[in-house]
Amino acid sequence: MSTSSVSAKSLTIGLIPADGIGREVIPAARQVLEALSSDIMPARLNFVDLDAGFEYFQKHGVALPEQTLAALKGDCDGALFGAVSSPSHKVAGYSSPIVGLRKQMDLYANVRPVISGAAATASGQKRAIDMLIIRENTECLYIKEEELHEGADGKYAIAKRRISEFASRRAGEMAFSMALQRDLMRQKVAASERTWKGRPKVTIVHKSNVLSVTDGLWRETVRGVYAGNAKYREGVDVEEQLVDSMVYRMFREPQAFDVVVAPNMYGDIISDGAAALVGSLGLVPSANVGDRFVVGEPVHGSAPDIAGQNIANPIAAIRSAAMLLERTGYASAALAIYRAVDKVLEAGQTKTPDLGGKSTTSEVTEAVCRLL
Amino acid sequence: MSTSSVSAKSLTIGLIPADGIGREVIPAARQVLEALSSDIMPARLNFVDLDAGFEYFQKHGVALPEQTLAALKGDCDGALFGAVSSPSHKVAGYSSPIVGLRKQMDLYANVRPVISGAAATASGQKRAIDMLIIRENTECLYIKEEELHEGADGKYAIAKRRISEFASRRAGEMAFSMALQRDLMRQKVAASERTWKGRPKVTIVHKSNVLSVTDGLWRETVRGVYAGNAKYREGVDVEEQLVDSMVYRMFREPQAFDVVVAPNMYGDIISDGAAALVGSLGLVPSANVGDRFVVGEPVHGSAPDIAGQNIANPIAAIRSAAMLLERTGYASAALAIYRAVDKVLEAGQTKTPDLGGKSTTSEVTEAVCRLL
Ligand SMILES: CC(C)[C@H](C(=O)O)[C@@H](O)C(=O)O
Ligand SMILES: CC(C)[C@H](C(=O)O)[C@@H](O)C(=O)O
Repeated sequence: MSTSSVSAKSLTIGLIPADGIGREVIPAARQVLEALSSDIMPARLNFVDLDAGFEYFQKHGVALPEQTLAALKGDCDGALFGAVSSPSHKVAGYSSPIVGLRKQMDLYANVRPVISGAAATASGQKRAIDMLIIRENTECLYIKEEELHEGADGKYAIAKRRISEFASRRAGEMAFSMALQRDLMRQKVAASERTWKGRPKVTIVHKSNVLSVTDGLWRETVRGVYAGNAKYREGVDVEEQLVDSMVYRMFREPQAFDVVVAPNMYGDIISDGAAALVGSLGLVPSANVGDRFVVGEPVHGSAPDIAGQNIANPIAAIRSAAMLLERTGYASAALAIYRAVDKVLEAGQTKTPDLGGKSTTSEVTEAVCRLL
Repeated sequence: MSTSSVSAKSLTIGLIPADGIGREVIPAARQVLEALSSDIMPARLNFVDLDAGFEYFQKHGVALPEQTLAALKGDCDGALFGAVSSPSHKVAGYSSPIVGLRKQMDLYANVRPVISGAAATASGQKRAIDMLIIRENTECLYIKEEELHEGADGKYAIAKRRISEFASRRAGEMAFSMALQRDLMRQKVAASERTWKGRPKVTIVHKSNVLSVTDGLWRETVRGVYAGNAKYREGVDVEEQLVDSMVYRMFREPQAFDVVVAPNMYGDIISDGAAALVGSLGLVPSANVGDRFVVGEPVHGSAPDIAGQNIANPIAAIRSAAMLLERTGYASAALAIYRAVDKVLEAGQTKTPDLGGKSTTSEVTEAVCRLL
């Protein structure tokens, strides 16, 4: 299992489409990866089809099968995950496979770039945004330790929210190092509007005015990462926002944010909010990143209302595939994909309905492939 | 302590400006209340000045003094709270006075109307929004049961998130009954754009795809309130949104929402997000409502950066005062204030800097008073 060697002769990618439009956008991403020429993408690509999801659970009683985990750990260098449907009521024994995957593979940071640029043009959106959200990906309320009790006034339930120094430090390191790194990448990517032109900045999100112990630990640990590293102090600015105020300010002045680092649940909410600012969730990719593995995952859901119609926007999944390449050491191939997508969006001819167009998933995918 | 009698000859209101601009906007709200003529406002108004806040804590070691609680319980029919500053680092013994107040006075729902209409015109915002957010106000992560531990990998902290049938039911009742009530009120209030024209609808916000036990209990209890009441079933539609998707959709199609009911923390975040859509947090009021008491509270914070300059927008506080009147049985007086505020916003001549204007807090307050 190797995630950073460029000398590897092959790259093996697990494909987990899961539910709904995941089954359309993951094949689209694969098609784009296969269209890369061998001078841009020096390694041979292998794909492994893997099961997971709520539909799979309904048939087999398990949402994230052991074979899938074994294949990821044993055979794959990285993976792409589609999207998962939510049961409309409590289902005994069901547990979200993407949450399980993040935990099992120790994918401790969810990296979510939300960039308008070309996308803004395509969707008629005016406000420029160039944010990188680093979402802590292993704890907070996502540890899913919940208990139901019977009290004097009826039932009550308690969920535990865990914040650790260890996980906060890893998320903080990711945020500050990516703030520096992205400053370099930004100079390479050719999108029409890169709004963040200042010194790299990290905004720490918390709610320590209420959660003084858990979010207090989060805040102090992330600040400690900064204080303890001269490179960060010299190259990056740091600020804080309470989560409610973060959502408010993000909508009022999205251009005020560069890298944003947040505990798991706040990160989930903020990244969907940021996606609204670029015109569609269908544009926003993510990478679930660990020290030894990476899983690309579009931020959107399984969208059962449009599934099976070949109209889902494949761009979030395609960009997620590029993030996977970037993190496994194939930056030039990643860049080629980012640029092809930007061009398709800038041209504005080939757009799925979420962006106000009439093109199909296949047409958008082919348009990207043609520009590679 | 009476909160619904119109026959009372006097209404006693506790004033708790607390920190920062709270000290400017609460006096502004008082000035407007005092400007009501006796034919609109039949009861004599008494005001009681009360202490609380972070600044008070710094001097006296307590953020919500016993005397304040005693005065509220013993002498007041309702209160207005300004805003509270957040310490920039953990301060031993400090605990948010507004969170304490909600708990001590059993103010179990935070009612937050977010309405564009006139406000949209004033701020140049185009998107119409006419939402009523009902935020559960007593539990969730706000119970503040947190513990710090020493683990093998360093420190970790656990916060408890409590969701009870009892509190969920009260919030649900508030949401469905207000959905019906507001349908009536809506016909009375003269604002230029009332966007919600359909049948009343309640959107239940949760994250039960991750928190199946706590948010599962929330969802099922609120649904149970609906299922158990023929008036609700006949007059109101019901739907659900996952919290991340709620924030996304609220920004993409704010006109799709009528009443929204959410657990405490999601409600906090959603209402700040919604405020961004009407142009300024300085416009959005709230009422912390219990069966026996009500506290009006602007949704904005203490804004230390602009405090003391007479430029804070007093409208959120003035509208919060009107909500206080509405809930203590003085609907006509409330309506007179809502209308005066709408007119000032529509005219667009007298605006504080948050709305792009140059007027002072005092000028906006006087403009409202002149129209009463
Ligand atoms: C499907 C759900 C469990 C997931 C999450 O909350 O993490 C999704 O919303 C996401 O953002 O990837
Ligand atoms: C000051 C803070 C504790 C408070 C909250 O989170 O409830 C505020 O944000 C609000 O919305 O009234």
